[in-house]
Amino acid sequence: MTTVICTTNRPKNQTIKIVEKYIELLEAKGEPCMKLSMEDLPADFIVSDSYGNRTEGFDKLVKEYITPAERLVIISPEYNASYPGVFKAFIDALEYKSLRGKKAGLVGVASGRGGNALGMAHLTDVLHHAEVEVMFNRLPISSVYNLVDKNKALIDEATIEALDKHCDQLLAF
Amino acid sequence: MTTVICTTNRPKNQTIKIVEKYIELLEAKGEPCMKLSMEDLPADFIVSDSYGNRTEGFDKLVKEYITPAERLVIISPEYNASYPGVFKAFIDALEYKSLRGKKAGLVGVASGRGGNALGMAHLTDVLHHAEVEVMFNRLPISSVYNLVDKNKALIDEATIEALDKHCDQLLAF
Amino acid sequence: MTTVICTTNRPKNQTIKIVEKYIELLEAKGEPCMKLSMEDLPADFIVSDSYGNRTEGFDKLVKEYITPAERLVIISPEYNASYPGVFKAFIDALEYKSLRGKKAGLVGVASGRGGNALGMAHLTDVLHHAEVEVMFNRLPISSVYNLVDKNKALIDEATIEALDKHCDQLLAF
Amino acid sequence: MTTVICTTNRPKNQTIKIVEKYIELLEAKGEPCMKLSMEDLPADFIVSDSYGNRTEGFDKLVKEYITPAERLVIISPEYNASYPGVFKAFIDALEYKSLRGKKAGLVGVASGRGGNALGMAHLTDVLHHAEVEVMFNRLPISSVYNLVDKNKALIDEATIEALDKHCDQLLAF
Repeated sequence: MTTVICTTNRPKNQTIKIVEKYIELLEAKGEPCMKLSMEDLPADFIVSDSYGNRTEGFDKLVKEYITPAERLVIISPEYNASYPGVFKAFIDALEYKSLRGKKAGLVGVASGRGGNALGMAHLTDVLHHAEVEVMFNRLPISSVYNLVDKNKALIDEATIEALDKHCDQLLAF
Repeated sequence: MTTVICTTNRPKNQTIKIVEKYIELLEAKGEPCMKLSMEDLPADFIVSDSYGNRTEGFDKLVKEYITPAERLVIISPEYNASYPGVFKAFIDALEYKSLRGKKAGLVGVASGRGGNALGMAHLTDVLHHAEVEVMFNRLPISSVYNLVDKNKALIDEATIEALDKHCDQLLAF
Repeated sequence: MTTVICTTNRPKNQTIKIVEKYIELLEAKGEPCMKLSMEDLPADFIVSDSYGNRTEGFDKLVKEYITPAERLVIISPEYNASYPGVFKAFIDALEYKSLRGKKAGLVGVASGRGGNALGMAHLTDVLHHAEVEVMFNRLPISSVYNLVDKNKALIDEATIEALDKHCDQLLAF
Repeated sequence: MTTVICTTNRPKNQTIKIVEKYIELLEAKGEPCMKLSMEDLPADFIVSDSYGNRTEGFDKLVKEYITPAERLVIISPEYNASYPGVFKAFIDALEYKSLRGKKAGLVGVASGRGGNALGMAHLTDVLHHAEVEVMFNRLPISSVYNLVDKNKALIDEATIEALDKHCDQLLAF
């Protein structure tokens, strides 16, 4: 079981199109997938579900999307030269070592060049500390606005191929 | 004018004791100081004040504590081998280049060894991108529980000296 | 086959004692090991074996210690808040993708606190790019001078236990 | 006085063209400049000038190009997702705190996209530890082969403008 995570809670974001394509590709290889977006979190989880507090909604979300996942695919837009703070706040809100023993694959998404290389480096440091194995292939997707059509579906062939290879590597990791 | 920032919103955190001591030391040198804690943010700012949304409360806080500050002292506990996600979410919620041209000094706080070296490195990458000058001295404070007394006041002499030197360096930066 | 690498070429360094203990522990678990130290490199390899140049000695060393190794244990002292430059120069001198597909375990060694956390982060970025899988457990060894006896043998029990656990994790990775 | 450093010792590298253009731009603003390339180092400096050893040639080079420089501009190609190991080995070979109090500006050079963002992040960590102030603007130059003409002179106008702005920022830092 793999959970593919959209690390932003921005409404109508581009990253979700990469998430959806990733799930499509991974399911075509026979892997059952779930989708988790930071939009699914309670708007006030930084208080309601942090530092010992826990709501039923957050708890259910963790039990459904995080606990049973052997693999996490973490797809992150570049915000201020890193991954979104809301996703780090989500990790901070999890119980100690909730992610222990899972395997992760990282994808960076940027409107400019660079594909969020720094964000994936920062995230690797955090995940290693959380005892998550992080696959070597940190896939950078640059100039994302050039890769989607008017309906915001991902249509760029080279990017789809790179995602497909990333899927194969993740399943073999 | 310097704003000293506590980057966590954890109730009754240890970091605030370092923040308070820093302000005391800096004010003794004649520098006017303000204190901003992530506890001061709206509990739902990741929605209410992100992606084009803005509440009056958040707006006022930015205008009072961020806009007029020439210097920011950013004091961060170590959460999952980095600085708290809530602080990155705060930076993500600011308007583009709100921090441009400011000068920053970093202090890391950890219960264990290491003093949040990785968190200060991640934060430097983010601040440089936001066009903030970051002073070289990333001050690591380790084993913070050994440095405070029962009232949680910072009493360790060597730490106070290190903070005092950091203040001097910041004012000269 | 595992090659355990001492990433410094400093004569009579402390790191080699950690390397030797690691090999002892890993061999006791039935894993065949080799030892490679940056002291073994030609003194002028940054010219003689870089940018298309190759000496017989360097070539032999790569074929003997790098090519056949499935796993690399990379043990790095902290020099200037990172791992030794000589080891990065060694990686730069290797042919493109010589390390591809290998698995790595990292150990940091420091005379002070922190255990080379930044150095292991930098090294992870480099190894991931070289298509090396890097185990999550970046083991920090701090205050190394307190852990060895007069003969510079590693005698600290807690450190030996941490290394032994690291060995087990590496073999299972 | 500013020393502009080419961090690779690769013969006939592209980075030197950026170095030369930077010096031309900086001198046009009235700043005296010196050029230091890692090609100028003794081929065996990792032994001959490390760990307490020092040759006359290396010593002279440090006294001429490093000691009197108030500012360092460090221009680094991307080797294995970081800056060249030979430059880190050079820093490791310097006496403790030789760089203390200097100001640095970073430029990254890459044949692909990304402009050596990770390398400049790693280098910032090292320089901050060496007590060097690092200017916020880490200038990434991507696709360098498209920016130079047959004589390998830098001719791309947008890149020259970005370098010129970087010069102004450095002089004001």
